[in-house]
Amino acid sequence: MKIKVLQDILDANEQIAERNRQLLDSKGVFAVNLMSSPGAGKTSLILETIKKLKGKTKLGVIEGDVSSSLDAERIGKEDVPVIQINTGGGCHLDANMAYSAIDNIPLQDIELLFIENVGNLICPAEFALGEHKRVVVSSIPEGDDKPFKYPLMFHRADAVLINKIDLLPYLQFDIQAFSQAIKGINEKVEIIQISCVTGQGIEEWVSWLLTQIGKR
Amino acid sequence: MKIKVLQDILDANEQIAERNRQLLDSKGVFAVNLMSSPGAGKTSLILETIKKLKGKTKLGVIEGDVSSSLDAERIGKEDVPVIQINTGGGCHLDANMAYSAIDNIPLQDIELLFIENVGNLICPAEFALGEHKRVVVSSIPEGDDKPFKYPLMFHRADAVLINKIDLLPYLQFDIQAFSQAIKGINEKVEIIQISCVTGQGIEEWVSWLLTQIGKR
Repeated sequence: MKIKVLQDILDANEQIAERNRQLLDSKGVFAVNLMSSPGAGKTSLILETIKKLKGKTKLGVIEGDVSSSLDAERIGKEDVPVIQINTGGGCHLDANMAYSAIDNIPLQDIELLFIENVGNLICPAEFALGEHKRVVVSSIPEGDDKPFKYPLMFHRADAVLINKIDLLPYLQFDIQAFSQAIKGINEKVEIIQISCVTGQGIEEWVSWLLTQIGKR
Repeated sequence: MKIKVLQDILDANEQIAERNRQLLDSKGVFAVNLMSSPGAGKTSLILETIKKLKGKTKLGVIEGDVSSSLDAERIGKEDVPVIQINTGGGCHLDANMAYSAIDNIPLQDIELLFIENVGNLICPAEFALGEHKRVVVSSIPEGDDKPFKYPLMFHRADAVLINKIDLLPYLQFDIQAFSQAIKGINEKVEIIQISCVTGQGIEEWVSWLLTQIGKR
């Protein structure tokens, strides 16, 4: 019975997500659902991507957080349209919340929309928002065992970015073992090592992203 | 209506948690609910605490994870009774899950029980397990803005440990601002800086813990 109710919620969410995707497609907007643990570097990644694409691709950002508008304020400084969603306790965005934001952001001025999900490796994986691609940001300090502990998140990702690679000299993290663990549950996933501090890998990430938009 | 149902769940959970607490009290076991983001260092902290208390205090550990038994295997090497709970997708432990484990661990051989919750800064804060104290492990790489983004977790903590303090030279993290943000929502909380790599602060943490057990 409990499972039935959850299934209904997920089905309803999937329908709204599909409507969001159609709306985005009709406006020529490509959307990325960005997910990670708290503090893995989603906002920093968006900021680095904005810098790289300035003058080339028009970006918009939806920020999801339980509370506060700190991330939207950081993004707002870059002169990019941004909307903050506060879930008020909710542990993930859902398609309905995403719709409220999509409906309020100037889609005609945007080609690429980042939707930064709530910092959480579990629940966001279950709720489609209408995105075209799902990107997971992992970071070196979190440790290399995460794919075993949070398999759904890695199973459903189109790309996994290994962030804070500049901290590798100071921490124990086996990149090969981590990558193999992800490939074991998700053969086709793209894995890119990046650092938002040194800029390493950002070029490769942006190139992957633009290829995905072109393929659409 | 939705809120009513959630309230019922939380009330039912609170009742089971209270029963867990009575059971633990009747056996003279002090329980700590350990919460954090993924990879903040809960298991490492338990391992360091086991080392410090070896021969002094008899420990037991309940490990909560969505999937895998990696953490229980790490703890098991220390010759301490340990039980792994896999939530199978659930984003937090609840009092009922905790009871299943408490009922299966040899309480007569234990004075201090660590319950390591699922790595998540949101949902675990809402569900009491029957613990005597709630301890949040934050880590330097997560950034100093977390109390603003995940206020409930910090609001309900008895202690916040700032872990991975050895990484401070390589990262931007304002300890004073972080501590002030926590004190702003939780005046009485204990804040201790630690490193499970260098051992810094572990003595202070263990001393705080033993004082809490003594006060009971």
